[in-house]
Amino acid sequence: MSRPAVHPVEAPPLVDGRNEAAPPRRVRMKDVQGMPGTSTGLGLRVCQFVATVVSLTVMATTSDFPSVTSFRYLVAAVGLQCLWSLSLAIIDVYALCVRRSLRSPTLITMYTIGDAITSTLTFAAACASAGITVLISNDLNKCNINHCKRFMSATALAFISWFVASPSFFLNFWSLASR
Amino acid sequence: MSRPAVHPVEAPPLVDGRNEAAPPRRVRMKDVQGMPGTSTGLGLRVCQFVATVVSLTVMATTSDFPSVTSFRYLVAAVGLQCLWSLSLAIIDVYALCVRRSLRSPTLITMYTIGDAITSTLTFAAACASAGITVLISNDLNKCNINHCKRFMSATALAFISWFVASPSFFLNFWSLASR
Repeated sequence: MSRPAVHPVEAPPLVDGRNEAAPPRRVRMKDVQGMPGTSTGLGLRVCQFVATVVSLTVMATTSDFPSVTSFRYLVAAVGLQCLWSLSLAIIDVYALCVRRSLRSPTLITMYTIGDAITSTLTFAAACASAGITVLISNDLNKCNINHCKRFMSATALAFISWFVASPSFFLNFWSLASR
Repeated sequence: MSRPAVHPVEAPPLVDGRNEAAPPRRVRMKDVQGMPGTSTGLGLRVCQFVATVVSLTVMATTSDFPSVTSFRYLVAAVGLQCLWSLSLAIIDVYALCVRRSLRSPTLITMYTIGDAITSTLTFAAACASAGITVLISNDLNKCNINHCKRFMSATALAFISWFVASPSFFLNFWSLASR
């Protein structure tokens, strides 16, 4: 699944001060910032995690969210995105610490499918919540008896987490197609 | 932008009954069924057009759709998708009739961006309408005073048109990345 970028057993000659190891036998995918195992990739995962956690917290603090199906769905979808982003952030931290490459085609395929599912669910939940929020605040003008601002904030944060999740998906999909 | 697949001026030797023309100087992208200028691509566009037209008609026949922002947005987004799919279907018919290749990178980039925008808008509108429809029918139980069935049908057809629009986008994006 992954292999070390540093080969400690065989010591190849040093050229320009860097360890120019022999090319590995398996085809290695291109190293693009934002992909798994890179610092930009880790940054994207952390942003996703923060946005989803804040969205989840804001929605969960409203007392009447369980009465609307879309808001319950938002909590579920954003929770799933939160767990997914946290898991991949931990894997990225591990990969960066031990300098392991995560760019094998199998891993990238798994990441692409996972990102596609979680980001689509998050986007769908954000859109459904936005529909309900606009209905309550604009069409019915019932903000006096509802937590409009919290619903809006949770929806906006869900949109932000989808927006930060999209680059991860597109980078993985692109690298999968272009290998 | 596009060039003829048949070169009538220079007559190359016939092999196996087919006109094996010399390869064109510009790099030609791979011919994958479902891409612009293929019969499967045309089929996808026709399916998108039919689904969007039916969704638009069903939603427009309800008298109270303009009172809900999400339903107005659904009509707008599905209308845009309808026009986009119709235009590309016409271009596909033209390309198939005169046997022109539409697989130049510039065209595919334009198609990919257009497909991404229209399908995202359609999906967002379908999700928002689904949120409202579920709120009316399940959470509030007000189907007796609303056109629940028509709202559901229009939403389902919007989801179908998004589902048929996705392969066009992914095929174009894949071929753009893998060229």
